[in-house]
Amino acid sequence: MTAADVQPFARVGVIGAGAWGTAIALAALRAGREAVLWAREPDIVETMRRRRENTRYLPGIPLDPALGLTGDLAEAAAADVLMLVTPAQHLRAACARLAPTAAAGTPVVLCAKGVELATGCLMSEAAEAELPGHPIAVLSGPTFATEVARGQPTAVTLAIGDPALGTRLVETLGSRSFRPYLSDDVTGAQIGGAVKNVLAIACGIIEGKRLGDNARAALITRGLAEITRLALALGARPETLTGLSGLGDLTLTCTSHQSRNMSLGAALGQGRPLAEILGERHSVAEGVHTAAAVGALAARKGVDMPICQAVDAILNRGADIDATIAALMARPFRIEGR
Amino acid sequence: MTAADVQPFARVGVIGAGAWGTAIALAALRAGREAVLWAREPDIVETMRRRRENTRYLPGIPLDPALGLTGDLAEAAAADVLMLVTPAQHLRAACARLAPTAAAGTPVVLCAKGVELATGCLMSEAAEAELPGHPIAVLSGPTFATEVARGQPTAVTLAIGDPALGTRLVETLGSRSFRPYLSDDVTGAQIGGAVKNVLAIACGIIEGKRLGDNARAALITRGLAEITRLALALGARPETLTGLSGLGDLTLTCTSHQSRNMSLGAALGQGRPLAEILGERHSVAEGVHTAAAVGALAARKGVDMPICQAVDAILNRGADIDATIAALMARPFRIEGR
Repeated sequence: MTAADVQPFARVGVIGAGAWGTAIALAALRAGREAVLWAREPDIVETMRRRRENTRYLPGIPLDPALGLTGDLAEAAAADVLMLVTPAQHLRAACARLAPTAAAGTPVVLCAKGVELATGCLMSEAAEAELPGHPIAVLSGPTFATEVARGQPTAVTLAIGDPALGTRLVETLGSRSFRPYLSDDVTGAQIGGAVKNVLAIACGIIEGKRLGDNARAALITRGLAEITRLALALGARPETLTGLSGLGDLTLTCTSHQSRNMSLGAALGQGRPLAEILGERHSVAEGVHTAAAVGALAARKGVDMPICQAVDAILNRGADIDATIAALMARPFRIEGR
Repeated sequence: MTAADVQPFARVGVIGAGAWGTAIALAALRAGREAVLWAREPDIVETMRRRRENTRYLPGIPLDPALGLTGDLAEAAAADVLMLVTPAQHLRAACARLAPTAAAGTPVVLCAKGVELATGCLMSEAAEAELPGHPIAVLSGPTFATEVARGQPTAVTLAIGDPALGTRLVETLGSRSFRPYLSDDVTGAQIGGAVKNVLAIACGIIEGKRLGDNARAALITRGLAEITRLALALGARPETLTGLSGLGDLTLTCTSHQSRNMSLGAALGQGRPLAEILGERHSVAEGVHTAAAVGALAARKGVDMPICQAVDAILNRGADIDATIAALMARPFRIEGR
């Protein structure tokens, strides 16, 4: 893959002005593109225009004067590439609103992580249903938005079936500080991001119970084995899961205290009741919902995911934490790699 | 693999009373075995006997009264299984001393991590040369000794060619808190532990330069890809590298501040000269030596290991850190999984 003969797209429309959408728009600018950022809330557009800062979702990061800001979906959709950065549960609706506006065949890059709870669909399945004829790519990896916005070095997986188009997207978004690694495994690139939050809750529980760093490293390793088993059952390739969207994102999420899911797990591990923890929070940690969806998916596909299923049982079926950990530790010894 | 019909070995001899050897002896006791711990230094044996504590290498952990302690190699060698826990560069000599003493055919479990610098040999290659006729196993994984000694949950890879013997070893050493996962990939199980310290130095540099958590997660991911390429070139299987001895140990080493290699890298990243850092230390961080050995091995096998080779260049050939990082970030964009 050589950059010389690949023409990047000129204009990138970013749909969703949360922390991650704002950071992606800044990354596109840094790669040398035009970028327009669309926010759903008019007051966010207004504040960003006036203060050149996304004070609500990405405070402290100045917005490059070249960044276009709009509340008009058609204006953002008039781009050569669309980046969809809405929350996972709103992705389908965003696609449906874009369908009549976006030019036929405009490539769409999905940047939301998660499983659609109502349907069990992956993000790509929801997008393909709502945006027929648009090539669908997935961007995923270990990405704290603030670091990307500041131009700190970041590497991600960019997955799409069409390698020629993928190469153009890599050249469109890639810069020295933001490095997309091309993959053709669209399914595989979504599983790590969808499941990691469940394992982050498990890591938090281990921390809350002070079980140690060895236990956390074992949990990350055996957790990746679970993610990989599920991904393979859905048609993914194993090397995707050891890549940035799998291992990379899992490592970041499970070793950082910035994660809401980790802190939820830690509070549980310290013995606080779930209802009390959730009552104090404005937003529910994503892993709480995903645990149920992943548990159901694993059962449907006949995949053994003991850690995810244990988290689901603790969160959603009142299982006792100590008894659940004891049962996991009392399993017969295993052959590695199975 | 069912425990019911497998007879564990009765007596475990542990050769080497550093932190890790002492912890392994305690783990064997906890699994229900007799355990005898051999220390090279007579004063260590004397202190451990008197205070029931390894005050030099594992302070603060009481030694179970049932633990045998000896400075007589023949006494420790009169066991059904031998665990070798000497430093990597002394493993061959320890094997040579054991050869006339150990009963023919006694299984030997290698617990030292590293590459023999003088020869480029893996630990198993050195042991096989010095202990012909002894089955050789490798135990490796994410294991802080203190946590193992305290009985905190820990999972490791136990690799050996003979699965029946492997199952007996798993039953001999395994308990609720110490869980060996059986593998037959003896080569693969050694590569992670040997190379991880080089990547820990790289992670330290990233930390010292405040490049962020995204960069560290990317480094761990791309670092595991390098380790895996080298391991495959040496005949290992990929799933071993995503297991406890590979990914597990790498994650632990690269995310913990207990690591000497991380702190060396951090000091380098902050701009301090290597000679000054090494001058302040009693012991050299293992990764400094390993970087050269891994760099040479990668070159000989024709394996692309840009991160390890960059660390080697910084440590051993005076390469400038900022220029080296800039060159890594300026590489052409890649396809993931290659």
